[in-house]
Amino acid sequence: MCDVCGCEDSVHTKETKIVDVNQSLLRSNENAALANKKHFDEKGILAVNLISSPGSGKTTLLERTAEALKDNISMAVLEGDIETEIDAERIRKKGVPAVQLTTGGACHLESSLVHKGFHKLEHQLNNKKLDVLFIENVGNLVCPSFFDLGEHIRAVLVSVPEGPDKPLKYPKAFKTSHAFIITKSDLVPHFDFDVESVKKTALSLNPLLKVFVLSSKTGEGLDEWFEFLKKNLATDSHRLKLKD
Amino acid sequence: MCDVCGCEDSVHTKETKIVDVNQSLLRSNENAALANKKHFDEKGILAVNLISSPGSGKTTLLERTAEALKDNISMAVLEGDIETEIDAERIRKKGVPAVQLTTGGACHLESSLVHKGFHKLEHQLNNKKLDVLFIENVGNLVCPSFFDLGEHIRAVLVSVPEGPDKPLKYPKAFKTSHAFIITKSDLVPHFDFDVESVKKTALSLNPLLKVFVLSSKTGEGLDEWFEFLKKNLATDSHRLKLKD
Repeated sequence: MCDVCGCEDSVHTKETKIVDVNQSLLRSNENAALANKKHFDEKGILAVNLISSPGSGKTTLLERTAEALKDNISMAVLEGDIETEIDAERIRKKGVPAVQLTTGGACHLESSLVHKGFHKLEHQLNNKKLDVLFIENVGNLVCPSFFDLGEHIRAVLVSVPEGPDKPLKYPKAFKTSHAFIITKSDLVPHFDFDVESVKKTALSLNPLLKVFVLSSKTGEGLDEWFEFLKKNLATDSHRLKLKD
Repeated sequence: MCDVCGCEDSVHTKETKIVDVNQSLLRSNENAALANKKHFDEKGILAVNLISSPGSGKTTLLERTAEALKDNISMAVLEGDIETEIDAERIRKKGVPAVQLTTGGACHLESSLVHKGFHKLEHQLNNKKLDVLFIENVGNLVCPSFFDLGEHIRAVLVSVPEGPDKPLKYPKAFKTSHAFIITKSDLVPHFDFDVESVKKTALSLNPLLKVFVLSSKTGEGLDEWFEFLKKNLATDSHRLKLKD
């Protein structure tokens, strides 16, 4: 009991109810995620959900991916942000269709919003076959990990300047991802960031993670990322098991 | 209506209920925040809530602040994280008391947890007077902005490597803060980050922001931050109006 206001317990009375509603929200999202996955599978689309803190380089990696692959692979992007069309405009400038999903304050994408955005995108594509759909989540290393969007590949990005402790501090994102991308590798000489040690920590959380170390600035490591995407295109392979 | 699953509207039916509960959660937090503020005011403690993405340099700034001020100003830290005691241990190594608040999955601190942590800290301090309480929020530029913790000063940090678009993309954090701290200023030459333009954007969202540009590595700009803290200590000044 607090000596000033006596409020130690009273502020917690709503916790049980809130947990229940959060569970309900997550279940509702899971149902919508299954519907999304069904869409993607029926149309032979590989869906990739990118998760990271703000400024880890998600959009820049998509720009590089567009430059390298868009002539041979049909791709589009759903851009999640709280506000602004900045990122969708960057992608469109690379000649790749993009729909901005503004969450209006919410800190993560949910499947229902992705579903709406996907149909909007399809309308723009006018029946053109799509090979890869990238979903760039809201910049946030926490909440997006809790929301399945129906993706086949979830990739978590950490940039070198963010520091080596991110896997231990944000384990959920690493435990639920298929790929871990260390970005801005050109900055390694300037930071206390031991790549091998960070890899090891991430793999201790999730031994199945496919790890990439790359720089969108110098191009280091980008080819491995492109090959990984190409190997996992359609042919139902991504429904069963990711190819290394 | 979706041609595959017909689920376009059904996935949204729970939205109204969830908004209601979120409002209730925020109200409950606000009541607890008022109780926190009452504690801090009665004891003459300046409470500072630090908000940023993971890896923006909150803990490192607190380490520098401890080194510079701890001999003259009594300080303590509540360290918010989803998991691990890494940050609290870093602070304790500087000779400053720290209590780790692990949220167990939640992406932000709430007032009730701060309240518990504060009493735990008081117990450790054994009636020693405290001048400043730093509350380092969970690394997340989104959700913490919605939760008042009873602090007198809310400071939002953005590091240079995160990029210049953060104020526009995460406006809530800037609109609700008193101070905006641009960190890792030593890296400006290596990034496309125009400090004056970023300042201008942030001030267009919130003209009252006090802006700091600093580097915990080189020491640039730290003195202004220390002076700002010292000017706003106790004497009830922080209850009325922040001093520049």
